[in-house]
Amino acid sequence: MVDRHRYARLRTDAGGTGMTEQVAATGRKRGPYAKTKRTRAAILDAALDVFARGGYRSGSIRDIATAVGMSEAGLLHHFPTKSALLAAVLEHRDQRSIDVLGTDDADPLATLRGLVELARYNASVPGVVALYCTLSAEATDPGHPAHAYFVTRYADTVGRLERAFDGCRELGRLRDGTTPGSAARQAVAVMDGLQVQWLLDPEGVDMAAELDRFLREVVDFD
Amino acid sequence: MVDRHRYARLRTDAGGTGMTEQVAATGRKRGPYAKTKRTRAAILDAALDVFARGGYRSGSIRDIATAVGMSEAGLLHHFPTKSALLAAVLEHRDQRSIDVLGTDDADPLATLRGLVELARYNASVPGVVALYCTLSAEATDPGHPAHAYFVTRYADTVGRLERAFDGCRELGRLRDGTTPGSAARQAVAVMDGLQVQWLLDPEGVDMAAELDRFLREVVDFD
Repeated sequence: MVDRHRYARLRTDAGGTGMTEQVAATGRKRGPYAKTKRTRAAILDAALDVFARGGYRSGSIRDIATAVGMSEAGLLHHFPTKSALLAAVLEHRDQRSIDVLGTDDADPLATLRGLVELARYNASVPGVVALYCTLSAEATDPGHPAHAYFVTRYADTVGRLERAFDGCRELGRLRDGTTPGSAARQAVAVMDGLQVQWLLDPEGVDMAAELDRFLREVVDFD
Repeated sequence: MVDRHRYARLRTDAGGTGMTEQVAATGRKRGPYAKTKRTRAAILDAALDVFARGGYRSGSIRDIATAVGMSEAGLLHHFPTKSALLAAVLEHRDQRSIDVLGTDDADPLATLRGLVELARYNASVPGVVALYCTLSAEATDPGHPAHAYFVTRYADTVGRLERAFDGCRELGRLRDGTTPGSAARQAVAVMDGLQVQWLLDPEGVDMAAELDRFLREVVDFD
């Protein structure tokens, strides 16, 4: 199962990330297992597209099945519920974020630079960004199936950045008067808020450059 | 028509803003016109609630009609289309924002303080905030009926704040190295991003205090 998910993630990542080649290579594998992986990948692509366009709630399994030329029953064989499909799409997004951000908490400046890299990567996947914006807003409703996921995800992200800013403070690089907790909340907010502005005006907004400017206002990188 | 909209706005604002009394007084007016106003107000309340819970796309006229005990046809008599209803809800939100922010561009520091006041007011209307977050994300899709509205709204808001930060610069109060355009984009992003964090964790996030801290990082208020 883990392997299938990983493949699905790779395929969904295709476009602008240099991963297309790996995917194409993997796609040439023979046999029923490879076919299943291709099918799951195609479903995740379609789900991402349908959810990104209309949000999770109005996106239907039927629309996703139609997009990949399957029956609803056929799709449900791969992902038994719409929530399971959503979880797979979110897992993809998270894994990709972790890959870009890195997992090394030892160098706080590197973590913050990783955040700018993530913003730069996001600019290559507008569909994922649109999905994430719509879903995180929808999921603020405690009744939404992804509510718990987003509550945990935000707490984790803010916590991790707070540790990074605290590390900067210990290095004497955090601006006086700024607290690590406040800088973390603001950094996450700037990143999220810029995504909406960028989706509305892709030519007028440079997410990575703007986030970089924000970070340089609170941290001394030089 | 203008008057009816205004009434609808007041009623929808009820709760936490000191406007309840005005509304109650207006509500005591007699006659069919007053009844129409009350009905429109009730529809806007229900629409706000339904759209805030599930987003605009999955919110149905039928659900809204049911919530106010009307038939769909009855509701469509007041708002002929779902888009017209959305426009009325957005108009309400904007008018309220303008009321809080003020329209005086002459004092840039007052404009920025108004932004903090707006964040404080928003904390009293979580349903409106949830609606706005979900809608602005959904509406990044060029095919969404509110797309043009949000493109214009963001351009206007960023433009207005850019003028305010430029005013601060002229007063020698903008932080060195910060440009008015960048500060404006970041301020809007912080405000938007904090809304999602606050909706996910109402006890843990103080939107007004956090926005205030951000603004004090780029502007000298004292």
